[in-house]
Amino acid sequence: MNVALLVCYDGTDFSGWQIQKNGRTVQYELESALSRAFSLSVRVTGSGRTDAGVHAAGQVCNFPFDENIKIAPEKIADALNACLPQDVRVLKSAAVPEEFDACRSAKKKTYRYCVYLSRREHPLMERYAVRSGERPDPARMKACAALLEGEHDFAAFSASGSSVKTTVRTVYSAAVGEQMRFGVPCVSFDVCGNGFLYNMVRIMAGAVLAFGAGRLSEKEILAALRTGDREVLSKTMPAKGLTLLSVDYGFPLFGE
Amino acid sequence: MNVALLVCYDGTDFSGWQIQKNGRTVQYELESALSRAFSLSVRVTGSGRTDAGVHAAGQVCNFPFDENIKIAPEKIADALNACLPQDVRVLKSAAVPEEFDACRSAKKKTYRYCVYLSRREHPLMERYAVRSGERPDPARMKACAALLEGEHDFAAFSASGSSVKTTVRTVYSAAVGEQMRFGVPCVSFDVCGNGFLYNMVRIMAGAVLAFGAGRLSEKEILAALRTGDREVLSKTMPAKGLTLLSVDYGFPLFGE
Repeated sequence: MNVALLVCYDGTDFSGWQIQKNGRTVQYELESALSRAFSLSVRVTGSGRTDAGVHAAGQVCNFPFDENIKIAPEKIADALNACLPQDVRVLKSAAVPEEFDACRSAKKKTYRYCVYLSRREHPLMERYAVRSGERPDPARMKACAALLEGEHDFAAFSASGSSVKTTVRTVYSAAVGEQMRFGVPCVSFDVCGNGFLYNMVRIMAGAVLAFGAGRLSEKEILAALRTGDREVLSKTMPAKGLTLLSVDYGFPLFGE
Repeated sequence: MNVALLVCYDGTDFSGWQIQKNGRTVQYELESALSRAFSLSVRVTGSGRTDAGVHAAGQVCNFPFDENIKIAPEKIADALNACLPQDVRVLKSAAVPEEFDACRSAKKKTYRYCVYLSRREHPLMERYAVRSGERPDPARMKACAALLEGEHDFAAFSASGSSVKTTVRTVYSAAVGEQMRFGVPCVSFDVCGNGFLYNMVRIMAGAVLAFGAGRLSEKEILAALRTGDREVLSKTMPAKGLTLLSVDYGFPLFGE
Protein backbone atom coordinates (compact mmCIF):
# COMPACT_ATOMS: atom_id res chain seq x y z
CA MET A 1 0.00 0.00 0.00
CA ASN A 2 1.26 3.45 -0.95
CA VAL A 3 0.71 5.92 1.89
CA ALA A 4 1.01 9.72 1.74
CA LEU A 5 1.49 12.03 4.70
CA LEU A 6 0.77 15.74 5.12
CA VAL A 7 3.64 16.90 7.29
CA CYS A 8 4.23 20.11 9.19
CA TYR A 9 7.48 21.12 10.85
CA ASP A 10 9.19 23.98 12.57
CA GLY A 11 12.47 24.13 10.68
CA THR A 12 14.36 26.09 13.35
CA ASP A 13 16.21 23.12 14.80
CA PHE A 14 16.48 21.07 11.61
CA SER A 15 19.30 20.80 9.09
CA GLY A 16 16.56 20.61 6.47
CA TRP A 17 14.42 17.83 5.06
CA GLN A 18 16.93 15.45 3.53
CA ILE A 19 18.84 12.87 5.54
CA GLN A 20 22.50 13.69 5.89
CA LYS A 21 25.41 12.38 7.86
CA ASN A 22 25.55 15.23 10.34
CA GLY A 23 22.55 17.17 11.50
CA ARG A 24 18.99 16.49 12.48
CA THR A 25 16.63 16.11 9.51
CA VAL A 26 12.86 15.79 9.06
CA GLN A 27 13.17 12.82 6.72
CA TYR A 28 15.24 10.96 9.33
CA GLU A 29 12.71 11.71 12.07
CA LEU A 30 9.86 10.38 9.91
CA GLU A 31 11.70 7.22 8.91
CA SER A 32 12.71 6.70 12.51
CA ALA A 33 9.08 7.11 13.67
CA LEU A 34 7.93 4.58 11.02
CA SER A 35 10.52 2.20 12.36
CA ARG A 36 9.46 2.68 15.98
CA ALA A 37 5.70 2.72 15.36
CA PHE A 38 5.49 -0.09 12.80
CA SER A 39 8.95 -1.73 12.65
CA LEU A 40 8.98 -0.53 9.05
CA SER A 41 12.32 0.19 7.46
CA VAL A 42 11.45 2.28 4.40
CA ARG A 43 12.60 5.31 2.52
CA VAL A 44 10.24 8.29 2.72
CA THR A 45 9.97 10.35 -0.50
CA GLY A 46 9.32 14.05 0.02
CA SER A 47 7.80 16.46 -2.50
CA GLY A 48 11.22 18.06 -2.45
CA ARG A 49 13.89 19.11 -0.03
CA THR A 50 13.61 22.10 2.21
CA ASP A 51 16.80 23.78 3.37
CA ALA A 52 18.06 24.07 6.92
CA GLY A 53 15.82 26.43 8.86
CA VAL A 54 12.95 26.42 6.36
CA HIS A 55 9.53 25.58 7.81
CA ALA A 56 6.67 23.57 6.33
CA ALA A 57 2.94 23.83 6.93
CA GLY A 58 2.08 21.36 4.17
CA GLN A 59 4.98 19.19 3.07
CA VAL A 60 3.87 15.93 1.44
CA CYS A 61 5.71 12.62 1.39
CA ASN A 62 4.93 9.00 0.62
CA PHE A 63 6.30 5.55 1.38
CA PRO A 64 5.39 1.90 0.88
CA PHE A 65 3.36 0.63 3.82
CA ASP A 66 3.11 -3.00 4.86
CA GLU A 67 -0.42 -4.25 4.01
CA ASN A 68 -0.21 -6.78 6.83
CA ILE A 69 -0.21 -4.08 9.49
CA LYS A 70 -3.79 -3.66 10.61
CA ILE A 71 -4.41 0.06 10.85
CA ALA A 72 -6.74 2.38 8.98
CA PRO A 73 -4.56 4.58 6.72
CA GLU A 74 -5.94 7.78 8.23
CA LYS A 75 -4.82 6.63 11.70
CA ILE A 76 -1.18 6.25 10.68
CA ALA A 77 -0.82 9.97 11.44
CA ASP A 78 -1.63 9.46 15.12
CA ALA A 79 0.67 6.45 15.45
CA LEU A 80 3.56 8.44 13.95
CA ASN A 81 2.84 11.55 16.01
CA ALA A 82 3.24 9.47 19.16
CA CYS A 83 6.82 8.72 18.03
CA LEU A 84 7.81 12.10 16.58
CA PRO A 85 9.60 14.99 18.30
CA GLN A 86 7.32 17.97 18.98
CA ASP A 87 8.63 20.08 16.09
CA VAL A 88 7.32 17.62 13.44
CA ARG A 89 3.73 16.47 13.17
CA VAL A 90 1.79 14.45 10.62
CA LEU A 91 -1.46 16.35 10.02
CA LYS A 92 -3.06 13.74 7.75
CA SER A 93 -2.34 10.30 6.33
CA ALA A 94 -4.06 8.45 3.51
CA ALA A 95 -3.71 5.56 1.08
CA VAL A 96 -2.88 6.90 -2.37
CA PRO A 97 -2.67 5.30 -5.85
CA GLU A 98 0.33 3.00 -6.32
CA GLU A 99 1.85 5.25 -8.98
CA PHE A 100 1.79 8.30 -6.72
CA ASP A 101 5.23 9.75 -6.02
CA ALA A 102 5.33 12.83 -3.76
CA CYS A 103 8.19 14.32 -5.78
CA ARG A 104 7.45 13.37 -9.39
CA SER A 105 3.65 13.71 -9.13
CA ALA A 106 3.78 17.28 -7.76
CA LYS A 107 2.05 19.79 -10.03
CA LYS A 108 2.38 23.03 -8.04
CA LYS A 109 4.03 24.21 -4.88
CA THR A 110 3.18 27.25 -2.82
CA TYR A 111 5.67 28.98 -0.56
CA ARG A 112 5.27 31.92 1.80
CA TYR A 113 8.01 34.33 2.77
CA CYS A 114 7.30 36.43 5.90
CA VAL A 115 8.86 39.76 6.81
CA TYR A 116 8.05 41.94 9.80
CA LEU A 117 8.66 45.66 9.84
CA SER A 118 10.33 46.94 12.95
CA ARG A 119 13.24 49.16 13.82
CA ARG A 120 14.29 46.67 16.49
CA GLU A 121 14.18 42.89 16.82
CA HIS A 122 10.88 41.52 18.12
CA PRO A 123 11.17 38.15 19.91
CA LEU A 124 7.58 37.12 19.06
CA MET A 125 8.29 37.58 15.35
CA GLU A 126 11.80 36.24 14.97
CA ARG A 127 11.00 32.56 14.67
CA TYR A 128 8.96 32.54 11.45
CA ALA A 129 9.77 35.91 9.86
CA VAL A 130 12.70 38.12 9.03
CA ARG A 131 12.97 41.70 10.25
CA SER A 132 13.17 44.64 7.90
CA GLY A 133 13.97 48.08 9.28
CA GLU A 134 12.70 49.61 6.05
CA ARG A 135 9.11 50.59 5.32
CA PRO A 136 8.54 49.02 1.91
CA ASP A 137 5.59 50.34 -0.09
CA PRO A 138 3.04 47.48 -0.37
CA ALA A 139 1.80 48.78 -3.72
CA ARG A 140 5.33 48.61 -5.12
CA MET A 141 5.83 45.13 -3.65
CA LYS A 142 2.63 43.98 -5.36
CA ALA A 143 3.77 45.49 -8.64
CA CYS A 144 7.08 43.65 -8.38
CA ALA A 145 5.34 40.35 -7.56
CA ALA A 146 3.21 40.79 -10.70
CA LEU A 147 6.37 41.16 -12.82
CA LEU A 148 7.48 37.72 -11.65
CA GLU A 149 4.28 35.93 -12.63
CA GLY A 150 4.24 33.82 -15.77
CA GLU A 151 6.76 31.61 -17.54
CA HIS A 152 10.26 33.06 -17.29
CA ASP A 153 13.86 32.01 -17.25
CA PHE A 154 14.55 32.43 -13.54
CA ALA A 155 18.32 31.85 -13.84
CA ALA A 156 18.97 35.19 -12.12
CA PHE A 157 16.78 34.02 -9.23
CA SER A 158 18.83 30.94 -8.51
CA ALA A 159 21.81 30.24 -6.30
CA SER A 160 24.92 29.60 -8.36
CA GLY A 161 26.29 26.07 -8.50
CA SER A 162 23.00 24.26 -8.93
CA SER A 163 22.83 22.07 -12.01
CA VAL A 164 19.40 21.78 -13.57
CA LYS A 165 18.34 21.03 -17.15
CA THR A 166 16.44 24.26 -17.52
CA THR A 167 16.00 27.38 -15.46
CA VAL A 168 12.62 28.12 -17.02
CA ARG A 169 9.78 27.89 -14.54
CA THR A 170 6.16 29.01 -14.46
CA VAL A 171 4.97 31.15 -11.57
CA TYR A 172 1.18 30.83 -11.49
CA SER A 173 0.73 33.51 -8.87
CA ALA A 174 2.85 35.81 -6.75
CA ALA A 175 0.98 37.86 -4.18
CA VAL A 176 1.84 40.24 -1.37
CA GLY A 177 -0.29 40.34 1.78
CA GLU A 178 -0.26 42.69 4.73
CA GLN A 179 -1.10 41.65 8.27
CA MET A 180 -0.73 42.96 11.79
CA ARG A 181 0.60 40.37 14.21
CA PHE A 182 0.76 41.22 17.91
CA GLY A 183 0.60 44.86 16.84
CA VAL A 184 3.55 44.56 14.45
CA PRO A 185 3.10 45.21 10.71
CA CYS A 186 4.03 42.17 8.62
CA VAL A 187 4.18 41.52 4.90
CA SER A 188 4.00 38.11 3.32
CA PHE A 189 4.98 37.05 -0.17
CA ASP A 190 3.10 33.98 -1.43
CA VAL A 191 4.30 32.36 -4.59
CA CYS A 192 2.83 29.37 -6.41
CA GLY A 193 4.70 27.72 -9.26
CA ASN A 194 5.30 24.48 -11.11
CA GLY A 195 8.74 24.22 -9.56
CA PHE A 196 11.42 26.35 -7.98
CA LEU A 197 15.15 26.63 -8.52
CA TYR A 198 17.53 26.48 -5.59
CA ASN A 199 16.94 29.52 -3.32
CA MET A 200 14.50 30.92 -5.90
CA VAL A 201 11.78 31.96 -3.45
CA ARG A 202 14.27 33.53 -1.05
CA ILE A 203 15.86 35.54 -3.88
CA MET A 204 12.43 36.55 -5.21
CA ALA A 205 11.37 37.67 -1.73
CA GLY A 206 14.53 39.76 -1.41
CA ALA A 207 13.85 41.37 -4.79
CA VAL A 208 10.22 42.13 -3.91
CA LEU A 209 11.33 43.72 -0.63
CA ALA A 210 14.09 45.72 -2.33
CA PHE A 211 11.65 46.86 -5.01
CA GLY A 212 9.17 47.91 -2.34
CA ALA A 213 11.87 49.90 -0.57
CA GLY A 214 12.90 51.59 -3.83
CA ARG A 215 16.27 49.85 -4.02
CA LEU A 216 15.37 48.01 -7.25
CA SER A 217 13.58 49.26 -10.34
CA GLU A 218 11.20 47.62 -12.81
CA LYS A 219 13.94 47.95 -15.42
CA GLU A 220 16.33 45.97 -13.23
CA ILE A 221 13.81 43.19 -12.50
CA LEU A 222 13.02 42.83 -16.20
CA ALA A 223 16.72 42.84 -17.05
CA ALA A 224 17.35 40.09 -14.48
CA LEU A 225 14.58 37.97 -16.04
CA ARG A 226 15.94 38.64 -19.53
CA THR A 227 19.67 38.28 -18.96
CA GLY A 228 19.83 35.78 -16.08
CA ASP A 229 22.24 38.14 -14.34
CA ARG A 230 22.02 37.63 -10.61
CA GLU A 231 24.23 40.63 -9.78
CA VAL A 232 21.55 43.30 -9.77
CA LEU A 233 19.26 41.38 -7.41
CA SER A 234 19.37 41.52 -3.64
CA LYS A 235 21.03 38.78 -1.70
CA THR A 236 19.21 35.61 -0.70
CA MET A 237 16.89 36.18 2.27
CA PRO A 238 17.38 34.07 5.44
CA ALA A 239 15.83 30.59 5.64
CA LYS A 240 13.67 31.16 8.71
CA GLY A 241 11.27 33.50 6.87
CA LEU A 242 10.37 30.75 4.39
CA THR A 243 7.56 28.23 4.80
CA LEU A 244 6.41 25.56 2.33
CA LEU A 245 2.66 26.11 2.48
CA SER A 246 1.29 23.38 0.25
CA VAL A 247 1.93 20.96 -2.59
CA ASP A 248 -0.75 20.45 -5.20
CA TYR A 249 -1.09 17.14 -7.07
CA GLY A 250 -4.13 17.99 -9.14
CA PHE A 251 -6.40 15.84 -6.98
CA PRO A 252 -7.17 15.79 -3.24
CA LEU A 253 -4.73 13.41 -1.57
CA PHE A 254 -6.44 13.35 1.79
CA GLY A 255 -10.04 13.21 0.71
CA GLU A 256 -10.88 16.88 1.34
CA MET B 1 15.95 60.55 35.49
CA ASN B 2 12.96 58.22 35.31
CA VAL B 3 13.20 55.95 32.27
CA ALA B 4 10.44 53.73 30.82
CA LEU B 5 10.95 50.76 28.50
CA LEU B 6 8.60 49.06 26.07
CA VAL B 7 9.55 45.41 26.42
CA CYS B 8 8.71 42.36 24.34
CA TYR B 9 9.44 38.77 25.30
CA ASP B 10 8.79 35.21 24.28
CA GLY B 11 7.61 33.70 27.55
CA THR B 12 8.28 30.09 26.57
CA ASP B 13 11.54 29.75 28.46
CA PHE B 14 10.74 32.15 31.31
CA SER B 15 9.37 31.47 34.77
CA GLY B 16 7.44 34.70 34.32
CA TRP B 17 8.21 38.38 34.82
CA GLN B 18 8.99 38.63 38.52
CA ILE B 19 12.38 37.78 39.99
CA GLN B 20 12.35 34.60 42.01
CA LYS B 21 14.94 32.37 43.62
CA ASN B 22 14.68 29.58 41.09
CA GLY B 23 13.89 30.09 37.46
CA ARG B 24 14.76 32.50 34.72
CA THR B 25 12.74 35.73 34.81
CA VAL B 26 12.34 38.74 32.52
CA GLN B 27 12.80 41.21 35.36
CA TYR B 28 16.10 39.59 36.27
CA GLU B 29 17.32 39.69 32.65
CA LEU B 30 16.50 43.41 32.40
CA GLU B 31 18.15 44.29 35.70
CA SER B 32 21.13 42.22 34.72
CA ALA B 33 21.37 44.01 31.35
CA LEU B 34 21.19 47.41 33.11
CA SER B 35 24.02 46.29 35.32
CA ARG B 36 26.15 45.11 32.40
CA ALA B 37 25.38 48.00 30.05
CA PHE B 38 25.53 50.87 32.56
CA SER B 39 26.85 49.40 35.84
CA LEU B 40 23.45 50.38 37.25
CA SER B 41 22.09 48.38 40.14
CA VAL B 42 18.41 49.26 40.21
CA ARG B 43 15.02 47.67 40.62
CA VAL B 44 12.89 47.61 37.49
CA THR B 45 9.15 48.15 38.08
CA GLY B 46 6.86 46.33 35.65
CA SER B 47 3.26 47.23 34.83
CA GLY B 48 2.45 43.94 36.49
CA ARG B 49 3.66 40.37 36.59
CA THR B 50 3.13 37.91 33.83
CA ASP B 51 3.03 34.21 34.69
CA ALA B 52 5.45 31.54 33.57
CA GLY B 53 4.99 30.93 29.84
CA VAL B 54 2.99 34.10 29.16
CA HIS B 55 4.33 36.29 26.34
CA ALA B 56 4.45 40.07 26.02
CA ALA B 57 4.39 42.26 22.94
CA GLY B 58 4.09 45.49 24.94
CA GLN B 59 5.08 45.14 28.58
CA VAL B 60 6.10 48.46 30.16
CA CYS B 61 8.55 49.00 33.01
CA ASN B 62 10.47 51.89 34.52
CA PHE B 63 13.55 52.45 36.66
CA PRO B 64 15.66 55.33 37.96
CA PHE B 65 18.49 56.09 35.54
CA ASP B 66 21.76 57.77 36.46
CA GLU B 67 21.74 61.31 34.96
CA ASN B 68 25.53 61.27 34.76
CA ILE B 69 25.52 58.56 32.11
CA LYS B 70 25.72 60.34 28.77
CA ILE B 71 23.21 58.63 26.50
CA ALA B 72 20.07 59.85 24.79
CA PRO B 73 17.13 58.14 26.56
CA GLU B 74 15.82 56.66 23.30
CA LYS B 75 19.19 54.93 22.76
CA ILE B 76 19.03 53.06 26.07
CA ALA B 77 16.98 50.41 24.21
CA ASP B 78 19.91 49.57 21.90
CA ALA B 79 22.42 49.44 24.74
CA LEU B 80 20.20 47.03 26.68
CA ASN B 81 19.42 44.87 23.63
CA ALA B 82 23.15 44.30 23.18
CA CYS B 83 23.17 42.71 26.67
CA LEU B 84 19.85 40.84 26.60
CA PRO B 85 19.19 37.20 25.61
CA GLN B 86 17.38 36.86 22.29
CA ASP B 87 13.98 36.12 23.79
CA VAL B 88 13.73 39.60 25.38
CA ARG B 89 14.03 42.88 23.53
CA VAL B 90 13.48 46.51 24.42
CA LEU B 91 11.46 48.03 21.57
CA LYS B 92 11.57 51.61 22.87
CA SER B 93 13.01 53.65 25.71
CA ALA B 94 12.17 57.17 26.85
CA ALA B 95 12.50 59.62 29.72
CA VAL B 96 9.18 59.89 31.55
CA PRO B 97 7.86 62.20 34.28
CA GLU B 98 9.39 61.59 37.72
CA GLU B 99 6.04 60.54 39.19
CA PHE B 100 5.50 57.84 36.54
CA ASP B 101 5.26 54.32 37.95
CA ALA B 102 4.72 51.53 35.40
CA CYS B 103 2.48 49.64 37.83
CA ARG B 104 0.52 52.34 39.67
CA SER B 105 0.15 54.69 36.67
CA ALA B 106 -1.35 52.02 34.40
CA LYS B 107 -4.87 52.90 33.23
CA LYS B 108 -5.71 49.98 30.92
CA LYS B 109 -4.14 46.73 29.85
CA THR B 110 -4.89 44.70 26.75
CA TYR B 111 -4.30 40.97 26.52
CA ARG B 112 -4.72 38.57 23.63
CA TYR B 113 -5.48 34.88 23.95
CA CYS B 114 -4.80 32.81 20.81
CA VAL B 115 -6.35 29.47 19.88
CA TYR B 116 -5.84 27.48 16.71
CA LEU B 117 -8.37 25.00 15.42
CA SER B 118 -6.92 21.70 14.34
CA ARG B 119 -7.61 18.06 14.91
CA ARG B 120 -3.89 17.44 15.38
CA GLU B 121 -1.02 19.44 16.87
CA HIS B 122 0.58 21.92 14.46
CA PRO B 123 4.23 22.72 15.24
CA LEU B 124 4.06 26.18 13.63
CA MET B 125 1.17 27.15 15.91
CA GLU B 126 2.12 25.58 19.21
CA ARG B 127 4.42 28.30 20.51
CA TYR B 128 1.97 31.23 20.79
CA ALA B 129 -1.43 29.54 20.68
CA VAL B 130 -3.32 26.65 22.17
CA ARG B 131 -4.94 23.95 20.07
CA SER B 132 -8.64 23.28 20.12
CA GLY B 133 -10.01 20.20 18.37
CA GLU B 134 -13.49 21.74 18.49
CA ARG B 135 -14.96 24.05 15.88
CA PRO B 136 -16.35 26.87 18.03
CA ASP B 137 -18.92 29.13 16.42
CA PRO B 138 -17.33 32.61 16.06
CA ALA B 139 -20.71 34.31 16.37
CA ARG B 140 -21.29 32.58 19.70
CA MET B 141 -17.78 33.46 20.88
CA LYS B 142 -18.45 37.11 20.05
CA ALA B 143 -21.75 36.98 21.92
CA CYS B 144 -19.99 35.56 24.97
CA ALA B 145 -17.25 38.21 24.83
CA ALA B 146 -19.96 40.90 24.78
CA LEU B 147 -21.46 39.47 27.99
CA LEU B 148 -18.13 40.03 29.74
CA GLU B 149 -17.83 43.70 28.81
CA GLY B 150 -18.59 46.33 31.43
CA GLU B 151 -18.09 46.59 35.18
CA HIS B 152 -18.63 43.24 36.85
CA ASP B 153 -17.56 41.29 39.88
CA PHE B 154 -15.18 38.85 38.20
CA ALA B 155 -14.69 36.66 41.29
CA ALA B 156 -15.75 33.58 39.30
CA PHE B 157 -13.07 34.44 36.73
CA SER B 158 -10.24 34.37 39.22
CA ALA B 159 -7.95 31.65 40.48
CA SER B 160 -8.68 30.77 44.08
CA GLY B 161 -6.21 31.80 46.72
CA SER B 162 -5.49 35.30 45.44
CA SER B 163 -6.14 38.03 47.98
CA VAL B 164 -7.34 41.31 46.51
CA LYS B 165 -9.43 44.11 48.03
CA THR B 166 -12.13 43.84 45.42
CA THR B 167 -12.88 41.48 42.57
CA VAL B 168 -14.79 44.17 40.66
CA ARG B 169 -13.10 45.15 37.42
CA THR B 170 -14.13 47.01 34.28
CA VAL B 171 -13.68 45.33 30.93
CA TYR B 172 -13.71 48.13 28.33
CA SER B 173 -13.77 45.78 25.39
CA ALA B 174 -13.70 42.06 24.70
CA ALA B 175 -13.46 41.06 21.07
CA VAL B 176 -13.07 37.88 19.07
CA GLY B 177 -11.09 37.88 15.85
CA GLU B 178 -10.63 35.20 13.20
CA GLN B 179 -7.47 34.76 11.17
CA MET B 180 -5.86 32.17 8.95
CA ARG B 181 -2.23 31.52 9.78
CA PHE B 182 -0.19 29.25 7.51
CA GLY B 183 -3.52 27.88 6.31
CA VAL B 184 -4.75 27.07 9.82
CA PRO B 185 -7.90 28.74 11.21
CA CYS B 186 -7.17 30.72 14.38
CA VAL B 187 -9.34 32.67 16.79
CA SER B 188 -8.07 35.39 19.07
CA PHE B 189 -9.74 36.87 22.13
CA ASP B 190 -8.64 40.45 22.87
CA VAL B 191 -9.64 41.94 26.17
CA CYS B 192 -8.95 45.45 27.46
CA GLY B 193 -9.67 46.34 31.08
CA ASN B 194 -8.66 48.55 33.96
CA GLY B 195 -7.08 45.59 35.68
CA PHE B 196 -7.23 41.81 35.78
CA LEU B 197 -7.51 39.28 38.59
CA TYR B 198 -5.14 36.35 38.78
CA ASN B 199 -5.71 34.07 35.76
CA MET B 200 -8.72 36.18 34.76
CA VAL B 201 -7.94 36.39 31.03
CA ARG B 202 -7.13 32.69 30.80
CA ILE B 203 -10.41 31.77 32.53
CA MET B 204 -12.35 34.24 30.35
CA ALA B 205 -10.75 32.77 27.21
CA GLY B 206 -11.72 29.28 28.32
CA ALA B 207 -15.30 30.42 28.91
CA VAL B 208 -15.51 32.14 25.51
CA LEU B 209 -14.21 28.99 23.81
CA ALA B 210 -16.59 26.73 25.76
CA PHE B 211 -19.49 29.05 24.95
CA GLY B 212 -18.52 28.99 21.27
CA ALA B 213 -18.46 25.20 21.32
CA GLY B 214 -21.86 25.06 23.02
CA ARG B 215 -20.49 23.74 26.32
CA LEU B 216 -21.56 26.86 28.26
CA SER B 217 -24.79 28.86 28.07
CA GLU B 218 -25.56 32.56 28.47
CA LYS B 219 -27.42 31.67 31.66
CA GLU B 220 -24.29 30.06 33.08
CA ILE B 221 -22.03 33.01 32.17
CA LEU B 222 -24.47 35.46 33.75
CA ALA B 223 -24.77 33.25 36.84
CA ALA B 224 -20.97 33.13 37.16
CA LEU B 225 -20.83 36.95 37.00
CA ARG B 226 -23.66 37.25 39.54
CA THR B 227 -22.69 34.57 42.06
CA GLY B 228 -18.90 34.49 41.78
CA ASP B 229 -19.12 30.72 41.48
CA ARG B 230 -16.12 29.42 39.55
CA GLU B 231 -17.46 25.85 39.30
CA VAL B 232 -19.54 26.26 36.17
CA LEU B 233 -16.72 27.83 34.15
CA SER B 234 -14.15 25.95 32.16
CA LYS B 235 -10.71 25.40 33.54
CA THR B 236 -7.92 27.95 33.17
CA MET B 237 -6.41 27.88 29.68
CA PRO B 238 -2.65 27.24 29.27
CA ALA B 239 -0.21 30.13 29.68
CA LYS B 240 1.39 29.92 26.24
CA GLY B 241 -1.76 31.17 24.45
CA LEU B 242 -1.65 34.44 26.39
CA THR B 243 0.18 37.61 25.34
CA LEU B 244 0.20 41.00 27.06
CA LEU B 245 -0.38 43.26 24.06
CA SER B 246 -0.16 46.74 25.55
CA VAL B 247 -0.42 48.92 28.63
CA ASP B 248 -2.14 52.27 28.36
CA TYR B 249 -1.16 55.17 30.63
CA GLY B 250 -3.48 57.80 29.17
CA PHE B 251 -0.62 59.56 27.41
CA PRO B 252 2.00 58.44 24.87
CA LEU B 253 5.05 57.24 26.81
CA PHE B 254 7.34 56.92 23.84
CA GLY B 255 6.40 60.01 21.92
CA GLU B 256 4.21 58.32 19.31
